[in-house]
Amino acid sequence: MKGIATDPKPAAAPRDNREAILGAVSRVIARRGIRGLRIEDVACEAGVSAALLYYHFGSRAGLVKAALEHASEQAPSTALRRPSDQNGFDAVTAALEAELGDDAAVRDNAVVWGEATASAIFERELRPDVKHVTASWCATVAEAIREGIDDGSIRSDVVPEEASDMLITLVDGLCQRWLAGTIGRERARELLRKALTQTLADPE
Amino acid sequence: MKGIATDPKPAAAPRDNREAILGAVSRVIARRGIRGLRIEDVACEAGVSAALLYYHFGSRAGLVKAALEHASEQAPSTALRRPSDQNGFDAVTAALEAELGDDAAVRDNAVVWGEATASAIFERELRPDVKHVTASWCATVAEAIREGIDDGSIRSDVVPEEASDMLITLVDGLCQRWLAGTIGRERARELLRKALTQTLADPE
Repeated sequence: MKGIATDPKPAAAPRDNREAILGAVSRVIARRGIRGLRIEDVACEAGVSAALLYYHFGSRAGLVKAALEHASEQAPSTALRRPSDQNGFDAVTAALEAELGDDAAVRDNAVVWGEATASAIFERELRPDVKHVTASWCATVAEAIREGIDDGSIRSDVVPEEASDMLITLVDGLCQRWLAGTIGRERARELLRKALTQTLADPE
Repeated sequence: MKGIATDPKPAAAPRDNREAILGAVSRVIARRGIRGLRIEDVACEAGVSAALLYYHFGSRAGLVKAALEHASEQAPSTALRRPSDQNGFDAVTAALEAELGDDAAVRDNAVVWGEATASAIFERELRPDVKHVTASWCATVAEAIREGIDDGSIRSDVVPEEASDMLITLVDGLCQRWLAGTIGRERARELLRKALTQTLADPE
């Protein structure tokens, strides 16, 4: 906490500084998991002092919570919150398939998400945060499904919250298996597309 | 390793001794996870010496591998390998719903399984074992789906391996969310039943 002692009133970090730190947290979690997370490793990865991290996030738990919120805000599915000229079915398909994307940031994000859920089994204090971001993801996808029903691209008998809850859980499961190497990314995307068609599209 | 030094040729443990030890490993993993697993805690839970555990399993990694195989052999879905007078659809439904069962052994099993997958993301040496038990689960369910197609309880256009792969991934995802407290068990079972109907049953 020396950094704080020598600088009693540090200015709030600029947004891009916070973003850079959160990117570093994601990379460290992606390499070693939440259970192995040490503030010192994040400080090293971000090129800042551990004191600065304590100042911004309060504790290791605060850092994990911020990393999870960051993963939630950066998730490919958040594209569904922005206006689009795709119909509902295509928008949901594109957003959920992108969760199995092959760039490093998407992969790191997926690891943070999966690790947060897996860790919440043992660390009860993580549960409200994991529950909150999961509910928010579910609501975003459900809203897009609702729009798809309105524009006729999704079957009218689909219950948006139910279909969304099922599909995001499948995406979660596919991401975990893909990251753990028990399923290939292409096979995972193929199963997801099949499930999307089955759940949302009109029978041919 | 003192136990081994004083007893250079210990007899192989009787099967029920090994079973008791594996039950203890599952309980310890269910409480603290694989990442937090210490041989000493398992020895304490099982009421045996750490030396005996090293003797039977070789290392911490050997113990984790044995726990995963045990979870795979004890999983409710293994009921599908035994003769039954249910039709294929009912058998698959009962087996997969039972994976979300509420007794302690099923829950502990689910934690071991989920933790093995989550840990395999970081511990590459776990991957072949996780891949093996996952493929075995998928094959068991696919075989039951095939029987369901033959007895007419499952749609004839279903591709058994594909439907099985999708359904077991959904069960994995639902189990993780249930254990992490982001979905209730009843809701999880409801989503699973809906997915089973949608994937395997004839449209009404």
